[in-house]
Amino acid sequence: MNGRVTLAHGSGGLATARLVREVFVETFADPELDRLEDQARIVLPEGQPVFTTDAFVVDPVFFPGGDIGRLAVCGTVNDLAVGGARPLYLGCAFILEEGLALADLRRIAESMKRAADEAGVRLVTGDTKVVPRGAADRVFITTSGVGVAPPGLDLGAHRLRPGDRILVSGPLGDHGAAVVDARGELGLEHDIVSDCQPLADLVEALVSQVPVHALRDPTRGGLAAVLNEWAQASGLDLTVEEAAVPVRNAVRGLCELLGLDPLYLACEGRVVAAVPSAAADAALALLRRHPRGREAARIGEVNGAGGTVVLETPFGGRRLLDLPVGEPLPRIC
Amino acid sequence: MNGRVTLAHGSGGLATARLVREVFVETFADPELDRLEDQARIVLPEGQPVFTTDAFVVDPVFFPGGDIGRLAVCGTVNDLAVGGARPLYLGCAFILEEGLALADLRRIAESMKRAADEAGVRLVTGDTKVVPRGAADRVFITTSGVGVAPPGLDLGAHRLRPGDRILVSGPLGDHGAAVVDARGELGLEHDIVSDCQPLADLVEALVSQVPVHALRDPTRGGLAAVLNEWAQASGLDLTVEEAAVPVRNAVRGLCELLGLDPLYLACEGRVVAAVPSAAADAALALLRRHPRGREAARIGEVNGAGGTVVLETPFGGRRLLDLPVGEPLPRIC
Repeated sequence: MNGRVTLAHGSGGLATARLVREVFVETFADPELDRLEDQARIVLPEGQPVFTTDAFVVDPVFFPGGDIGRLAVCGTVNDLAVGGARPLYLGCAFILEEGLALADLRRIAESMKRAADEAGVRLVTGDTKVVPRGAADRVFITTSGVGVAPPGLDLGAHRLRPGDRILVSGPLGDHGAAVVDARGELGLEHDIVSDCQPLADLVEALVSQVPVHALRDPTRGGLAAVLNEWAQASGLDLTVEEAAVPVRNAVRGLCELLGLDPLYLACEGRVVAAVPSAAADAALALLRRHPRGREAARIGEVNGAGGTVVLETPFGGRRLLDLPVGEPLPRIC
Repeated sequence: MNGRVTLAHGSGGLATARLVREVFVETFADPELDRLEDQARIVLPEGQPVFTTDAFVVDPVFFPGGDIGRLAVCGTVNDLAVGGARPLYLGCAFILEEGLALADLRRIAESMKRAADEAGVRLVTGDTKVVPRGAADRVFITTSGVGVAPPGLDLGAHRLRPGDRILVSGPLGDHGAAVVDARGELGLEHDIVSDCQPLADLVEALVSQVPVHALRDPTRGGLAAVLNEWAQASGLDLTVEEAAVPVRNAVRGLCELLGLDPLYLACEGRVVAAVPSAAADAALALLRRHPRGREAARIGEVNGAGGTVVLETPFGGRRLLDLPVGEPLPRIC
């Protein structure tokens, strides 16, 4: 597997077959992939099937705490998980730029396999396209996923109620800050590590023991985007206590240097949960007992009618936390 | 919807929400998309669930007979169909280059909706990423699909038997030739139209009435790739009678000019079927009665042990039809 991706690898011929076999089929090691058909047969347990897809274009491809492959698996697994589903199967479609090192592609595939094993999902179907040099940037990966939620489980902004408490499962902004730091343009050495991780087990533990109302993973647009979407969809006001929001010192430092707000930075291994007030203590304790939620915190609550998100600052001030308008950090995921 | 795609459209914030709502949610008009959650809940009838994904990077984006949107829907629908499944749900992930005209994006979305309606599938989940100018070429679309096959239906190269007849549902190479022609570099005016169409109804009619052994859609690598994969996977020799293979005159003319072989050109609306000899007449009649299979033909058969594909020429010659090695036509799908 020395060498580089060539247009022949996208021909559908001999080179494609070899690439698929030597990189993907071998690494992902799944009997459905071995069949080399254009579709996978899957088995779904009883329950509510759930389906999702996400494209990943992160730059750089490798960053502290992960890479585009791990990100592509975790992102789709987490979109299923916050729908209350146990993720079961993933498909992955690669768009490769001519010239990509095959060793990088193999490293990405191996990282996907590790993340899939960690999340308990199988990579069962895929596709590879190659575009001429300059028509894409190295590698883009789109993952799609199928999972099954417990029958009758209903999560979403429509279930938010005044008095609900808002929890996060850990510090915010690690992924966004790690990717910016890894671009190296700043000449900084923050050693910030992405939080990129699959949340399926954490979420399953939570929804099986607590009557959760809504769950989201705060990716692009960060916590601010999630809370604004909830506020708009529910027509309720949300309040966040700024001092209660966990943010690592290194992330805060980077944000101050760059004029960024950690509440808008992407996470790839955190969940935001709205739970009834009476269940908030139990939910927080449960999250903190879990290895992926040790630094969970209660950060705010759902109020009455309105539809806005208000940030309460440490000095008693209140300001609107709006949806982000521009894009300070393209290709963060 | 004047204007162009900007990086803000990929921010996860206000501009993203507006783009998603005004282009995708409005055009695709599906209650699951309206929920604006990161995953769709789907309902699957009894049977064998089937799952697939494909990336589309065709250049140019618009070509006679279709566009990248129609192609992305048909390609994934057809991958489900040749697995014997009725396609039910699609997910679509867009990678957009900064600067893409919003009018083009809307035109592509409308084309996807029409193709989805034609195929009887629902577009229920999606994602949009934007990369800076130069990091991608206009628009790439990855579709993923979920369908359900009749319980117990078993299709694939492992079911090929000596004596099976090989059928195609129509002329070969229309899509590949149409895309090459549309690039306009040749200064030709062939008026070749892509065969890009969903095959779900045709395949469903076929597998419900004929004991089909294997089905494939001859996309990248064309008929030659499908037959070589079948020969290798089954260990059986396949013979194709060159004179029996339907190819339109305009496609043949373009191929002669460019030194291409229509047996290697991509189709996006054809199916190759292997059926028991006793069922071949019925299968051919059924295909020809169907509006998407009027020009179906019997082109060859499955022989004994070997694993190669042999082309019988009109003058009594025989030559090996190999897997394509290089890539004469990048970005054909």
